[in-house]
Amino acid sequence: MAAIGIIGRDGRMGRAIAAAIEAADHTLAGGADKGEDVAGLADRSDVLIDFSAPGALHTNLHAAVGAGVPILIGTTGLEGQHHTAIDNAARAVPVLQTGNTSLGVTMLAKLVREAADKLDAGWDIEIVEMHHRRKVDAPSGTALLLGEAAAQGRGIDLAENSERGRDGRTGERGDGTIGFASLRGGTVAGEHSVILAGENERIVLSHVAEDRALFARGALTAAAWLIGRGPGRYSMDDVLGL
Amino acid sequence: MAAIGIIGRDGRMGRAIAAAIEAADHTLAGGADKGEDVAGLADRSDVLIDFSAPGALHTNLHAAVGAGVPILIGTTGLEGQHHTAIDNAARAVPVLQTGNTSLGVTMLAKLVREAADKLDAGWDIEIVEMHHRRKVDAPSGTALLLGEAAAQGRGIDLAENSERGRDGRTGERGDGTIGFASLRGGTVAGEHSVILAGENERIVLSHVAEDRALFARGALTAAAWLIGRGPGRYSMDDVLGL
Amino acid sequence: MAAIGIIGRDGRMGRAIAAAIEAADHTLAGGADKGEDVAGLADRSDVLIDFSAPGALHTNLHAAVGAGVPILIGTTGLEGQHHTAIDNAARAVPVLQTGNTSLGVTMLAKLVREAADKLDAGWDIEIVEMHHRRKVDAPSGTALLLGEAAAQGRGIDLAENSERGRDGRTGERGDGTIGFASLRGGTVAGEHSVILAGENERIVLSHVAEDRALFARGALTAAAWLIGRGPGRYSMDDVLGL
Amino acid sequence: MAAIGIIGRDGRMGRAIAAAIEAADHTLAGGADKGEDVAGLADRSDVLIDFSAPGALHTNLHAAVGAGVPILIGTTGLEGQHHTAIDNAARAVPVLQTGNTSLGVTMLAKLVREAADKLDAGWDIEIVEMHHRRKVDAPSGTALLLGEAAAQGRGIDLAENSERGRDGRTGERGDGTIGFASLRGGTVAGEHSVILAGENERIVLSHVAEDRALFARGALTAAAWLIGRGPGRYSMDDVLGL
Repeated sequence: MAAIGIIGRDGRMGRAIAAAIEAADHTLAGGADKGEDVAGLADRSDVLIDFSAPGALHTNLHAAVGAGVPILIGTTGLEGQHHTAIDNAARAVPVLQTGNTSLGVTMLAKLVREAADKLDAGWDIEIVEMHHRRKVDAPSGTALLLGEAAAQGRGIDLAENSERGRDGRTGERGDGTIGFASLRGGTVAGEHSVILAGENERIVLSHVAEDRALFARGALTAAAWLIGRGPGRYSMDDVLGL
Repeated sequence: MAAIGIIGRDGRMGRAIAAAIEAADHTLAGGADKGEDVAGLADRSDVLIDFSAPGALHTNLHAAVGAGVPILIGTTGLEGQHHTAIDNAARAVPVLQTGNTSLGVTMLAKLVREAADKLDAGWDIEIVEMHHRRKVDAPSGTALLLGEAAAQGRGIDLAENSERGRDGRTGERGDGTIGFASLRGGTVAGEHSVILAGENERIVLSHVAEDRALFARGALTAAAWLIGRGPGRYSMDDVLGL
Repeated sequence: MAAIGIIGRDGRMGRAIAAAIEAADHTLAGGADKGEDVAGLADRSDVLIDFSAPGALHTNLHAAVGAGVPILIGTTGLEGQHHTAIDNAARAVPVLQTGNTSLGVTMLAKLVREAADKLDAGWDIEIVEMHHRRKVDAPSGTALLLGEAAAQGRGIDLAENSERGRDGRTGERGDGTIGFASLRGGTVAGEHSVILAGENERIVLSHVAEDRALFARGALTAAAWLIGRGPGRYSMDDVLGL
Repeated sequence: MAAIGIIGRDGRMGRAIAAAIEAADHTLAGGADKGEDVAGLADRSDVLIDFSAPGALHTNLHAAVGAGVPILIGTTGLEGQHHTAIDNAARAVPVLQTGNTSLGVTMLAKLVREAADKLDAGWDIEIVEMHHRRKVDAPSGTALLLGEAAAQGRGIDLAENSERGRDGRTGERGDGTIGFASLRGGTVAGEHSVILAGENERIVLSHVAEDRALFARGALTAAAWLIGRGPGRYSMDDVLGL
C-alpha cells in the first residue's frame, strides 16, 4: 500500500487516477494543480504521478529529486528539452515517462514487434482502429504506436512505408507497406487490430479498451512498481518485464 | 436437375460456374464464347447464365427470348441502353440481372437496410472491408452496395453523406454520415462489416467470403430458381424471398 | 421532457435509470422502494418504470391504472399470474413488459429471426457470447433470446434443436441445430454473435454492450415512447417500429 | 529450388503438398506410397516429407539416414517408440517432427506463451475456435496446442486448469483457469482466438485459416529450410527463428 501524489489532480486523468486509488490498495497522498506546492506533495508521497503540462515538468522533476521519490510522467506534448530534463532527473530517482499507460497496449506492441520481426515481408501488415465519434484525428496515437512497433520489427521506416486513407483507384497494395484505417462512431473507448495477412492465413492481434479507466489503472500499477527501484529511466515495457 | 447453358464459359466466372454445376445436381448444357452459337445453346438449356460482355448482351437476350428460356445476367459495366433491353426481354422471359450473386451479401444488404431504417440517426454507420493485396480500388463494390442499402434505410443520399479515407485532422465525425474504410492484404477473398454504433452499444453485421466459389454457387442457385417463373425482371432479393 | 417515476429506485437498475434521467431531457418524478407510496408516485409521474420484484407487481399495476399513467415492467421472474395481471392492466393503460431493454438487442433479434427465416437450413446457426468472470450461468439470457429468435425464423423448437457445451468426441454437427458457446473473463459487459455459416460464406450478426448503462438508457427511451399511447400491451419491438 | 520427395503422396496432405510444389520454385522428386521404394526416393530427393503412417516411420527414417537427406515428419499418432526413433535419426540427419505445419499457428503459439507469461493471472484466458460442420471432436487440436502454450506461459498444468463445455449453472469463472469453446458450422477451414481479459481491457490473439492449403505450404517451407542444416531434431519454431 503506497501513498500516491497526483500532479494535475483536477484534470481528466488526475480524477480518474484518484478514483482508481480508492478502488485499489493505495492512499491518495494529495494532489497538486497549477501553482500549488509540488515539493510539499512530494515529501508526503511514496511516488508522484504527473499528468499536468509540459511547462510544469521542470518543477515536478525537481520536487521528485528533492524528496527522493520516483515519478511517472504521463504528460503529452514533450519536446527535446523535456526529455533531457527527464534523463537528468533519472540519475537521481526512478522516472517512467510514457504516452500510453495501458498494460494491454504495451503488451500488444511487444507482440506486434515480434511477429513483424519473425514473419517475412510476404505477410502484409494492416492496422485498423475504432474510436468514438468525437475523436478529431486519424489514425489514433495508439495505432501509430503499434505501427511503429511493426516497422521496428520489420526494420523499416514507418513514415516511408505507410498506406493511409485508401480511397478510389489505389492500385495494388505496395509490397512491404503498413496500412492504416480508422473507424469513428458511437462511444467506442478504443479498439485496435493489427492484421498480418499471409498466403491463405492471417494473424490478428487486437486490443479492446472497454473503458478509459484502464489508463488510470495502468498508471497506478506502473507508479506502484516504480517504488523501491534504483534511479534510472524506465518504460512501460519494464513494468511488464518485457 | 436442370440443364445450364453458360455464356462466357471460358471466363473466370464461367469456369467457376461449370465447376459448381459438376458439384451440384445439374448438368452443363454447354458453353458459348465470343462468336459462338448462343441461340443453339439456348435451345438445349433450361436456363442461361451470362457472364460475358455488355457488347454481347443484345444477342444473348435475343437467344433467351427466342428459345423461351430464363436468363441470369451477371455481366458488369451495363449502361442505360442495356437495362432497357433487359426490361424488354423481361416481358417475354424471366430475367435476373445482378452485380453480386452472393446469397449472403444479398441477405446482409436487406438486414442493413432494415437496421438503418429502424435505428435512429444517433446510431453512426461505418463500413469496413478487407480484400487481397491485388485489389486496385477502394472501397469494394460490395461495400458500396452495403452503403447504398444503409443510405436507403436512412432515406439519405449516399454520395452526399459519405466519409471516405479518413486521415489526419479530420475533425469530429459528421452527424448522419456513413464511413468507409478499406484494408488490403494477403489472399483475403472478401470480408465486410457494417457497424451501427450507438450510445454504449453496437450492432455489427458482417459477411465473410471464404472462397470466391460462392459467387458461382449463388449464380447457379439463382438460375435454377428462375426456371418455371413467369416473365419479369427479378433480383437476388426475389431468390431469397426478401 | 417527461416526469419519470421509478419503482425499485434503490436497486442496481433503479439507480442506473436515475442517472440516465439526469443525462437526458427528463426529470425524476421520484422513486418508490419497498413499502413506499407507489400510488402517490404514479400521480406525479408521466410514466412509471418498475424494476422491483414480482411480489410488488399487482400494487404497481394498480397504481398505474389508478393514475392513468403508462408503466414499463422490467422486473424478472414473472409467472403466469403476473402476465394475466399485466394483460388486465393493459386494457386500461399502456404497459410494456420486457426482459431486455437494450434497443440494440431488440433490433438484432429481429434481424436474426429474418435471416434464419430467409436462408435455408443449409446455413448452420451458432451463437457465441462473452461476459465478465462473475457471471454464474451459461448461455446468457440474451443468447437464449437470440436463439429463440433464430428458432422462430426457422420454424423449429429451440429446446429440441440446441447443441450446448460441445466437448470431446461430439460427432459431426447435427443438421438444423443451433449451437451455443459461452466465454467468461475480465469485465466484459456482454458481447453476442449469431453466426450463419453456409457454403464458403458466413453472415455474422453481433451486439456489443460497452457498458450496462445501455439497459437503463433503453428503458428510459421505451418509457418515454409509452407516453401518449393508447391502452394495450407493448413490447420493445413496438418501440423500434419492428 | 529443391527436389522434394513425398512419402504418403496419395493421401490428402501428400496431394496438397504436390500441388504446392508446383506453385513454388521446387520440383517433385517423386512420391512413395504403401510398400513403395522409399530408399530410392530418398536417393533422388534433397529432402523428404512424410505424411504417411506411424507404422512406416522406421523405414522412412532409415531411408533418410541412408541417403543422408533431411526429413520432415508430419504423421500424427506417434508414440514413445516413434519419438525415440526420431531422436536416433536426428543424430545423423536433420529431422523436423510437428503436428501443425502452419507458420501462422506456430507464430501465434509463441505470442500466446509470451503474453500469458508477462501478464499476471488476473488476466483470464479463453480460447474459442470455429471449424466446419464435419469436424467430430472439440476443442480442435490447434486450440489445445494454443492452450498448452498459454499454460506453459503461466507455469500451470493445462489439464488441471481447463474449463470446457460451459453450460447451465456453472458458477463464477475459476481463477487462473483456461476456458475453451467450440463452434461448428458451414465450411470454415479453421479460426482460433485466444482472449486475455483483464480489468476494462482485452488482448485478442487470433489465427484465421482461409484454406487448408496453408498446411501444405507450411510443410514445404519447413522442408526447404531443413536442407543444409546440421543433424539434429528441429521444430517449426526453429523455422521461424523463435
